[in-house]
Amino acid sequence: MPPAGLPNAGASVADVAERLAAVVGASQVLTDPETRRSFEVDWTGRFGGPSCIVVRPGSTAEVSEVVKICRDMPIVTQGGNTGLVGGGVPWQSQPDQPGPVVLSTTRLDDLQPVDRVAAQVTAGAGVTLARLQSHATQARLNFPVDLAARDTATVGGMVATNAGGLHVLRYGTMRAQVVGLEAVLADGSVLTRMSGLVKDNTGYDISQLLVGSEGTLGVITAARLRLVAAHDEKVVALLGFAGTAEALAAVDVLRRNVEGLQAAEIFFEDGLDLVRSHARLAAPLPQSWPAYLVVEAAALDDPSEQMYGALSELDLPDTATAVATDPAGQARLWAYREHHTEAVSSIGIPHKLDVTLPQSRLADFEHAVRKVVADAAPGSRLVLFGHIGDGNLHVNVVGPDPEDEAVDDAVLRLVAEMDGSISAEHGVGRAKARWLGLSRSESERSAMLKVKRALDPRGTMNPGVLFDLSG
Amino acid sequence: MPPAGLPNAGASVADVAERLAAVVGASQVLTDPETRRSFEVDWTGRFGGPSCIVVRPGSTAEVSEVVKICRDMPIVTQGGNTGLVGGGVPWQSQPDQPGPVVLSTTRLDDLQPVDRVAAQVTAGAGVTLARLQSHATQARLNFPVDLAARDTATVGGMVATNAGGLHVLRYGTMRAQVVGLEAVLADGSVLTRMSGLVKDNTGYDISQLLVGSEGTLGVITAARLRLVAAHDEKVVALLGFAGTAEALAAVDVLRRNVEGLQAAEIFFEDGLDLVRSHARLAAPLPQSWPAYLVVEAAALDDPSEQMYGALSELDLPDTATAVATDPAGQARLWAYREHHTEAVSSIGIPHKLDVTLPQSRLADFEHAVRKVVADAAPGSRLVLFGHIGDGNLHVNVVGPDPEDEAVDDAVLRLVAEMDGSISAEHGVGRAKARWLGLSRSESERSAMLKVKRALDPRGTMNPGVLFDLSG
Repeated sequence: MPPAGLPNAGASVADVAERLAAVVGASQVLTDPETRRSFEVDWTGRFGGPSCIVVRPGSTAEVSEVVKICRDMPIVTQGGNTGLVGGGVPWQSQPDQPGPVVLSTTRLDDLQPVDRVAAQVTAGAGVTLARLQSHATQARLNFPVDLAARDTATVGGMVATNAGGLHVLRYGTMRAQVVGLEAVLADGSVLTRMSGLVKDNTGYDISQLLVGSEGTLGVITAARLRLVAAHDEKVVALLGFAGTAEALAAVDVLRRNVEGLQAAEIFFEDGLDLVRSHARLAAPLPQSWPAYLVVEAAALDDPSEQMYGALSELDLPDTATAVATDPAGQARLWAYREHHTEAVSSIGIPHKLDVTLPQSRLADFEHAVRKVVADAAPGSRLVLFGHIGDGNLHVNVVGPDPEDEAVDDAVLRLVAEMDGSISAEHGVGRAKARWLGLSRSESERSAMLKVKRALDPRGTMNPGVLFDLSG
Repeated sequence: MPPAGLPNAGASVADVAERLAAVVGASQVLTDPETRRSFEVDWTGRFGGPSCIVVRPGSTAEVSEVVKICRDMPIVTQGGNTGLVGGGVPWQSQPDQPGPVVLSTTRLDDLQPVDRVAAQVTAGAGVTLARLQSHATQARLNFPVDLAARDTATVGGMVATNAGGLHVLRYGTMRAQVVGLEAVLADGSVLTRMSGLVKDNTGYDISQLLVGSEGTLGVITAARLRLVAAHDEKVVALLGFAGTAEALAAVDVLRRNVEGLQAAEIFFEDGLDLVRSHARLAAPLPQSWPAYLVVEAAALDDPSEQMYGALSELDLPDTATAVATDPAGQARLWAYREHHTEAVSSIGIPHKLDVTLPQSRLADFEHAVRKVVADAAPGSRLVLFGHIGDGNLHVNVVGPDPEDEAVDDAVLRLVAEMDGSISAEHGVGRAKARWLGLSRSESERSAMLKVKRALDPRGTMNPGVLFDLSG
């Protein structure tokens, strides 16, 4: 499935632009290179390439027309452009190729009133996470997925990449929130499954197939999403441990005894040192520990008692425990975890890997990856942190040139050997496509490719994403 | 995709049986009509037909070999044979056709130790729900899906049909419990995704595509399933209401105020009268009400206080409220709901429909369906009950001949007009295939068929299920 590099049957880019303008309005078809620029590169600046046209349809019907008009041209769907794997921007193409159409979903920003009886809401693909969250809160409900890019990330992009974030432990990933989708497939047909039926066993769940498909099967135009009860009562604890194994055992105890447990985040002594010097923070505990957890519970009734009960069962020393029941104290404890990303970036351009391990192998992996990184990139600096409650670690390596992928390759191979996933929540995009075989067997890739070819026989939907075209 | 009615390239059934025996052992290939009989009809006696062979492989590798040997023959996969829509048994074929191969999964009954750290377990397709539940309980965890057929229904069948049951409100359907699958596709290839990774964004989730596919895409051989915390503290309430709208409003209040709410079941005055006379039960409340709810909450700490708080907010009269905090009292309240199925069957062979409505239209539907049934089947008896927390109603009509589907057709058309689903949790099978178009649009059915053809190009996996072959 090579990208179809040329517009339809001899039509020039100008012809296509004119036909698109007739559908979406001339002001929503960007052909000028300057105005297209911001759509052609991701926010990290690492991925991107030229487009031929940027088009911004304003409705599902317009998306369908756009897809039909561009049916022989490669289409890259772009939401808030906050992805980390180059899945939402064009690629470096040959100079004689015009580049793909970028279909921006940001104008699909209709946000319907919250359905309080069903505890659901219908949101256009272009609605930002922050707007969705605030909309739910006004109805005294909560949208359970949260992540740092909330002001820019869109519902469509989050569905297409099955976004994760901080509360997966309790509420699952974006997949678990999707009770229905509206989408336009490669042939321009519109799939609509928006009644919000929790139980609907009438054949294959095409909505769920589109979740995490990264724009390769169609364009998601709207989603019907579940909301959960809002919780006013919260408790946060920061705990010190001798190592990852001890921290994992603690998560098990917490999970069994604290009903509203919604986050369990790990970081390590060297990461904490880096964060403290970067953000000028005092030590969180009276003594240093090799590994740390930040855990959070939220409930209708104050969850502190259950948290204290679990901590008492864990029998940790006083020097390993800090608990906050007030918002200011909670923010102070969270800061040690939250400053990790910027602290890492302050010492260089990191190689960022986002992996999951089976929980039973996480402790072994933490030891092994230190050795693998030291061997593959001597003198580099490794900072590990992540969502231990889901087995998800962010592996950051500062030192090797950004273009030198030897350390990425070594770490991902280790992950595969230990039955892990090469992408936990960021997706595969173009950046990881060449490593997909490490996580998915030949039978799986073959089944995936059959599905891809069945729904996108021309291979025009986000070519190069998921399936490596170079090899 | 007509069923391939004949064995492979001229091979006789006896030849195929011999080849199968070489793989699974002669005792696991049933060719004698008498021993095949129990596999050829469903438990209601309504659906069934002749098979040519029943084969019982004992491992995933054997399933793969069986599928390869039978590659040009139609294959019906059968678990515990507790389905209600004829999806797991052969069909009435032409006399000159030999009938399909029945692949029984009951010998795939390996149940691995509970992974306590991940709160997951790996179960073979043939493991019964009751065995799985008891296994989880021994590890002080809980498998959250529960249904009446627990002693016979198998993991494979429950995944293939995306089983629902009593606790969907809290934990979702079977789909939400599946963190990985092992399956054999139509070409005999084995898909394995069993590391139990909660976050694994590496392409299409083929496991989720197989959930609810009713044997039409492959044979599920094992599942990796999530477990949840076991809850010792429970409270049950039986409440009376003026109608469905009032009951729905109460569910909203309960959902917001009772964290461990895990069941919200509705039934009506006429159904209660029938149950009371059938099971000889005293009245649950000092006065009669048009509609009733049974609600249940379970938690680590006693949820009674939250339940009493919600009931106080609802401000129901004393004559509309019964609460039980002890197991015997809870069983007494549940009995009014649980006896509905057998009470209905005691007055005749019911037409059983299993539908979901958007919660906002459930009250209107309840009124409308009474009129539609009275018109389509004058003099019949309609009994409604179901999982109101999920919008799921079981519509039972006693009176019309079982073969006369006029009332089924009228009810399902009403459901479709009101944006509902013609199958909430039972699936489509062969029984509902002709009505699939009421719930899924032409675009959706076209996408489903493309996926089916991509993964099962010969159309041999459970032909006639989901996709109607007669029209």
